[in-house]
Amino acid sequence: MLRRRMNALAARYSLKNAIMELGPTGYPFEKFIGELMKRMGYEVMTGQILPGKCVSHEVDVVAWNGKSKNMIECKFHNTAGKVCSVQVPLYIQSRFLDIKAVWESQPENNSRSFQGWVVTNTRFSDDAADFGKCAGLHLVGWDYPRRGSLKELIQQNGLYPVTAITGLNKKQKQLLIENGTVLCADLCKKPGLLDMLPLSQNSKKKILSEVRTLCSLAATTVIPD
Amino acid sequence: MLRRRMNALAARYSLKNAIMELGPTGYPFEKFIGELMKRMGYEVMTGQILPGKCVSHEVDVVAWNGKSKNMIECKFHNTAGKVCSVQVPLYIQSRFLDIKAVWESQPENNSRSFQGWVVTNTRFSDDAADFGKCAGLHLVGWDYPRRGSLKELIQQNGLYPVTAITGLNKKQKQLLIENGTVLCADLCKKPGLLDMLPLSQNSKKKILSEVRTLCSLAATTVIPD
Repeated sequence: MLRRRMNALAARYSLKNAIMELGPTGYPFEKFIGELMKRMGYEVMTGQILPGKCVSHEVDVVAWNGKSKNMIECKFHNTAGKVCSVQVPLYIQSRFLDIKAVWESQPENNSRSFQGWVVTNTRFSDDAADFGKCAGLHLVGWDYPRRGSLKELIQQNGLYPVTAITGLNKKQKQLLIENGTVLCADLCKKPGLLDMLPLSQNSKKKILSEVRTLCSLAATTVIPD
Repeated sequence: MLRRRMNALAARYSLKNAIMELGPTGYPFEKFIGELMKRMGYEVMTGQILPGKCVSHEVDVVAWNGKSKNMIECKFHNTAGKVCSVQVPLYIQSRFLDIKAVWESQPENNSRSFQGWVVTNTRFSDDAADFGKCAGLHLVGWDYPRRGSLKELIQQNGLYPVTAITGLNKKQKQLLIENGTVLCADLCKKPGLLDMLPLSQNSKKKILSEVRTLCSLAATTVIPD
């Protein structure tokens, strides 16, 4: 019964579209990627200004654990056809090397490796992917790389955005996002966050039920593209 | 008499505006920068695809002599307020390092040094200038650096674009540019190039006289901004 309901739910929305609805600005996507990194065991800061050897840089997500420190650039596109061109990994590589030079000089990073990332919700051009691979930059697109794509990371970590809730309209989703509630997981933990929306008790109950299903979606569930 | 005429001419047009009239595309500006490098003693190719260690890149201008090989990115803006942000030197630095890795492996470059450039007809943001200086990228803006700015290089080399000719209207200048005639020097060498414009013999004579004055403008003449 639950399985059937989960599948029905999974079929009813497109995760890819839900991520696109995080727009129009790139900020909720950055927050979303930050949460994803937290689920993967990293400590995370978003929207930080970091000093480089040459200049300071605004970095979307910094994620670290005992072993590594990661500089992550998020490229959010709200249309499916938009591609990340080679220019993006080119400038992110320079930015990463500039920041890495400072990280390497800090004693607390002695036992850490350093990694630059570009994460997009669409895809990379062929030369962008080639450059990333060759330069050692970690590129994550919707379907790229085959293992560890954004789609897969979201599935594996069961991290669904509030835009995936079919019981809410666009305006209601936007209101949640503007107030800092980007994840279904936030609503599972604090159902009271739904109170900011003008919903009847009955609607609220239905939506919370959908939210709980989304929160519990297992890593094995296949989400249609 | 000639001096007075030259000054009058110099006062009558703004060199900066003449360069902006090279638009709307960036191509004539690339050609112009290529010619400038030729005047400075380099061999030049424009609009080439060059292999890098990781990927191939389209390079606006490659300029070389016995001592050095230069990769030049041209950033043309047709509005004065447009600034080159730090993103440009960041991605050009990665592109330059990628191409340099190939140049270094070529025996014919054994005795050459390598240099990346960004040339713009407007200006660089402060952090763009800081990054360029720190990373060893050669940045040339309209007024930057104090010695060797684009304005100064144009003056020193007496290289005036056809858009500086006051006797031609916008449409006529555009027609010359579209047909590959970007420099007054081209018209001095081949006055017949003016024949593509519907001009009376008298107008043509006047314009050629103005063109010859522009071609002979001495390096010491101060051109108003």
